[in-house]
Amino acid sequence: MNFMNKSNPIGVFDSGIGGLTVVKQLKQFLPKENIVYFGDTARVPYGTKSNSTVIEYAIQDARFLINKNVKLIVVACNTASSVALDVLREKFGVPIIGMITPGANLALEKTKNNRIGVIGTEATISNAAYSKELLKLNDKVKVYEKACPLFVPLAEEGWLEHKATKLIAKEYLSELKEKNIDTLILGCTHYPLLKNVIGEVMGEGVELIDSGTAAAIVVEDYLRAKSLLNDSSVEGNDLFFVSDMPGKFKFIAERFLGKKLPNIRKIDLDEELSFKN
Amino acid sequence: MNFMNKSNPIGVFDSGIGGLTVVKQLKQFLPKENIVYFGDTARVPYGTKSNSTVIEYAIQDARFLINKNVKLIVVACNTASSVALDVLREKFGVPIIGMITPGANLALEKTKNNRIGVIGTEATISNAAYSKELLKLNDKVKVYEKACPLFVPLAEEGWLEHKATKLIAKEYLSELKEKNIDTLILGCTHYPLLKNVIGEVMGEGVELIDSGTAAAIVVEDYLRAKSLLNDSSVEGNDLFFVSDMPGKFKFIAERFLGKKLPNIRKIDLDEELSFKN
Repeated sequence: MNFMNKSNPIGVFDSGIGGLTVVKQLKQFLPKENIVYFGDTARVPYGTKSNSTVIEYAIQDARFLINKNVKLIVVACNTASSVALDVLREKFGVPIIGMITPGANLALEKTKNNRIGVIGTEATISNAAYSKELLKLNDKVKVYEKACPLFVPLAEEGWLEHKATKLIAKEYLSELKEKNIDTLILGCTHYPLLKNVIGEVMGEGVELIDSGTAAAIVVEDYLRAKSLLNDSSVEGNDLFFVSDMPGKFKFIAERFLGKKLPNIRKIDLDEELSFKN
Repeated sequence: MNFMNKSNPIGVFDSGIGGLTVVKQLKQFLPKENIVYFGDTARVPYGTKSNSTVIEYAIQDARFLINKNVKLIVVACNTASSVALDVLREKFGVPIIGMITPGANLALEKTKNNRIGVIGTEATISNAAYSKELLKLNDKVKVYEKACPLFVPLAEEGWLEHKATKLIAKEYLSELKEKNIDTLILGCTHYPLLKNVIGEVMGEGVELIDSGTAAAIVVEDYLRAKSLLNDSSVEGNDLFFVSDMPGKFKFIAERFLGKKLPNIRKIDLDEELSFKN
């Protein structure tokens, strides 16, 4: 199979820019890997859409990356991870790693009182993606979930420490605070950007779990076990593709990753994605 | 031409639910008209997307309505109105009414000091859609524009009078307050939902212009002039189509319009919209 080659890139897709927090973690753990990123900015967000629509989009996104000869795909979008992972694995031969299982495992490692909170988009929470996974792995934990739909637009607006953000975080998180959780899964790739405000509201006794970090560790373990780690002596190259607004993506992506990104290309949805599945 | 018939419906499209505020105005001014609404909820929002993407979607939306034999189309989305109106008029024979010109005309009627503010999505404001139109109609006015990207998610979350909404409104509107405007165009169909908070922040001296009301008046005048007003003796029937999440749409739409809506149908994007233009 042509994707089973050390020097092939890791593919990462997300509905938009949120997946860049996962890219940041991958770069930290695996600096020599090449990354091909696809952000579906013409159809963002996924978190307010139906399961069938998200599955359809995820298949198209994965196929785009497979055409770039990736050796592994990271679904850097909790919504797509929560509804599309099984379909993707059935459909494609390439290994596919989502956000849910790695995040759930890391949370179970960290919790001491077995009381875990999860925040995410409406889709992720209404699918109960994390609570199902957590209870499958350990039926003794108590899981409390809360959708926080305004966190994504606040992060995209760049209001990471704004008074309004704090007020909104207080309102969203008050239920979870009452539940005496000691671990909170940030079940949306945008949320690590609001880590300071979320941490401040939850207080020091609560550990925040970034599923992107957890997924990066799983990717590293997987590639090592399969002898597929890139053994290049130089830093990896990254390529970024979006379905709309490459200029805006570049601006935000450079702020996220803290460096200049020359390689951002806009693809044509109709030509490259919208073929029938 | 088959759309030139009194009993044919008025077509209305929007990226999602915002256009329902326009439907509400149409129902008030023209209770006997039948309405076919299309909300492109699988690809909402349009306001953060590029002009070319919005134009492509708007063509598909208009074609869907034309296939329902509408006698007139209302583009109940300021973003689509600001970038796609000329293309739609060139492409299709049916009369097409947008939000920008009606809203601009109503604002010019109301202003006494010729200082007009405009708020809208990033796309509407960066296209300077209202200021270009206002200055074309009257080169003596001063126009001040401000994008308010968080207003749409706040309205969709239903936080119409929330403390956080007030805080965010204060921040967004402070620049406009300093400009001593006496008229403010709500340049996004979601914003009438936040009318109370916006009005409170701006103060009593500032008149708020709802482009939906303005557009409904233009539709009535146009149909009367062309002898195309529906002369049925009973109230019109409405049909609602969406590209995703009919259940969520129904819930919000019923809250918006204050009545039960039995007729909401989900269409298949690929089959009904994604043919080549």
